[in-house]
Amino acid sequence: MTASTTITLHYLGPEGTFTHQAAITAAQTLRPLAPEGAEFTLAPEPDVPAIMVATRDGDGWGVIAWENNVEGYVVPNLDALIDAEDVAGFVRVGVDVAFDAFVRPGTDMSRVRTVSAHPHGLAQCKRFIAEHNLTPVPASSNAAACRDLKPGEMAFGPAICGKLYWLDTVAGGVQDYQGARTEFLVIAPRREVPDLLARARGNGVAEFESIVTFIPLNTGPGVLADLLDVLRDAGLNMTSFISRPIKGHDGTYSFIATLDAAPWEDRFRAVLGEVAEHGDWVKTLAVYPRRERPNPPVDAWMLPQGGVHLDASALPDGWNDDETVGRELLW
Amino acid sequence: MTASTTITLHYLGPEGTFTHQAAITAAQTLRPLAPEGAEFTLAPEPDVPAIMVATRDGDGWGVIAWENNVEGYVVPNLDALIDAEDVAGFVRVGVDVAFDAFVRPGTDMSRVRTVSAHPHGLAQCKRFIAEHNLTPVPASSNAAACRDLKPGEMAFGPAICGKLYWLDTVAGGVQDYQGARTEFLVIAPRREVPDLLARARGNGVAEFESIVTFIPLNTGPGVLADLLDVLRDAGLNMTSFISRPIKGHDGTYSFIATLDAAPWEDRFRAVLGEVAEHGDWVKTLAVYPRRERPNPPVDAWMLPQGGVHLDASALPDGWNDDETVGRELLW
Repeated sequence: MTASTTITLHYLGPEGTFTHQAAITAAQTLRPLAPEGAEFTLAPEPDVPAIMVATRDGDGWGVIAWENNVEGYVVPNLDALIDAEDVAGFVRVGVDVAFDAFVRPGTDMSRVRTVSAHPHGLAQCKRFIAEHNLTPVPASSNAAACRDLKPGEMAFGPAICGKLYWLDTVAGGVQDYQGARTEFLVIAPRREVPDLLARARGNGVAEFESIVTFIPLNTGPGVLADLLDVLRDAGLNMTSFISRPIKGHDGTYSFIATLDAAPWEDRFRAVLGEVAEHGDWVKTLAVYPRRERPNPPVDAWMLPQGGVHLDASALPDGWNDDETVGRELLW
Repeated sequence: MTASTTITLHYLGPEGTFTHQAAITAAQTLRPLAPEGAEFTLAPEPDVPAIMVATRDGDGWGVIAWENNVEGYVVPNLDALIDAEDVAGFVRVGVDVAFDAFVRPGTDMSRVRTVSAHPHGLAQCKRFIAEHNLTPVPASSNAAACRDLKPGEMAFGPAICGKLYWLDTVAGGVQDYQGARTEFLVIAPRREVPDLLARARGNGVAEFESIVTFIPLNTGPGVLADLLDVLRDAGLNMTSFISRPIKGHDGTYSFIATLDAAPWEDRFRAVLGEVAEHGDWVKTLAVYPRRERPNPPVDAWMLPQGGVHLDASALPDGWNDDETVGRELLW
């Protein structure tokens, strides 16, 4: 007889959501971190607070949406993780936001007139809807649209909905915009995270990223600059930075930074220590293996339209009286 | 005969959206900035790009959602304004996210079984739905749910939907969370904005806020800290700050700052000049009269759960070997 371990991965249901797809991807990524022979069970939850509670209580790990390259941060989840007791992220996984078009088996395609999905899903597949002369019918979620699909109708959803709900895939990747991607964090009880990260290092992962929240207790001009000076002087590279009001308290601010370093590295540890000794509030939200990331230079051709961009080595006289400069800066 | 001016305010339709409500509020706020006797016409548009184009082409002004205190920035609109040619914001208006419950006149309330709204609207009124044993029915928008409301059914929407669609208001403010608020920017062609702001100053507005986007052309550790040092050294107070990938170019960054100052004030003008002379890309997205804002101190009782918060004046020996500190910082 072999002792076997089952780890539950909690995700935002119903079955067939993008978070479900992320949980399936995460189960592969997580295999080297789990005890040998461990099995993963996936459990749909009604909302993110339920995922946080199940994880905090030691009933497995959770998968939460974190950031989308079009919509930005999933701010309610960011606020929830900042305020969460005893959970932290240790793996980050990405899922392409791609929709397939499904029908029930045996459907006569020439008679399909309607397509169902969440309004966001319908908005992301406008071209396909127009080309096929379909009438959009909103649903509470893409997964629910696929689950509840009636014979003779069509639904849009993540690829996994086909297998899950025994549907025929009529067309793949029907979304208008091909580059959308959502990133998810896998979260665990805080007491487990150091061991999980130690295992990743043991498996040869050398580079990590960290997400840290800072709340300066004294506010006013320069608070943020002073904080960032500490990070710069330590040579730490930041890949994302935002300010957020403290949940429920407009006018108070926390700062969330994503850094190319792990808190146990000397220079990062020294920074965290310096900020904490200064009396500011600090919390590490997640530490995970560094993602593959593009690192392109900023070329002039990719700058937004308008704005001011001068050649610093050859400033024309009186550039600051220029009419175009004035219009773009509104000074 | 009197010459009369009509200014069109373009908003995200259909009629009865929160943006429509914001446009109605904006029309009041804008009256002192418009030519005397000017009338406002409100025009629903299919999407935000259509609003940007109508505004750029001089066919009136536009109203776009900018930030919500629960969901954060409306990132697609932020990206659109960064990349917009020749439009800028000059007024900011806030709208409470509040839902009323509507029925068609003459409805027998005891027989109402379903309620229709956008899935987000349904998710924000869960308590009311449960208390009244209603079955939620998703719609493409709250405004559309009200417009298309059938006798014997209920819909949730902004208060203005009652008058717009000749509906009876069954209950007001049925949302679960009472503090949600969305802020909108009113945008105009860039060439008009300096005159509009001059008129606001002429009307006695003394304090302004500005939203500015910076793109450092050289990347690497310290770029952001260097930029913020310039703002701090000028004594400029920042109320919001985020980084965003340049649209369509993951791994490249722009920084969006909201500051308590106007670009024509000496110290701010000097900062913009210094950054531009350094060769970085700069664009002022909006300048508008300063909002009433709470400015509370950060008290320990409003800090998030967990995290590290030390008393800087009495650091205990060996605090950095403390187990709780280690768990919260993951170092």
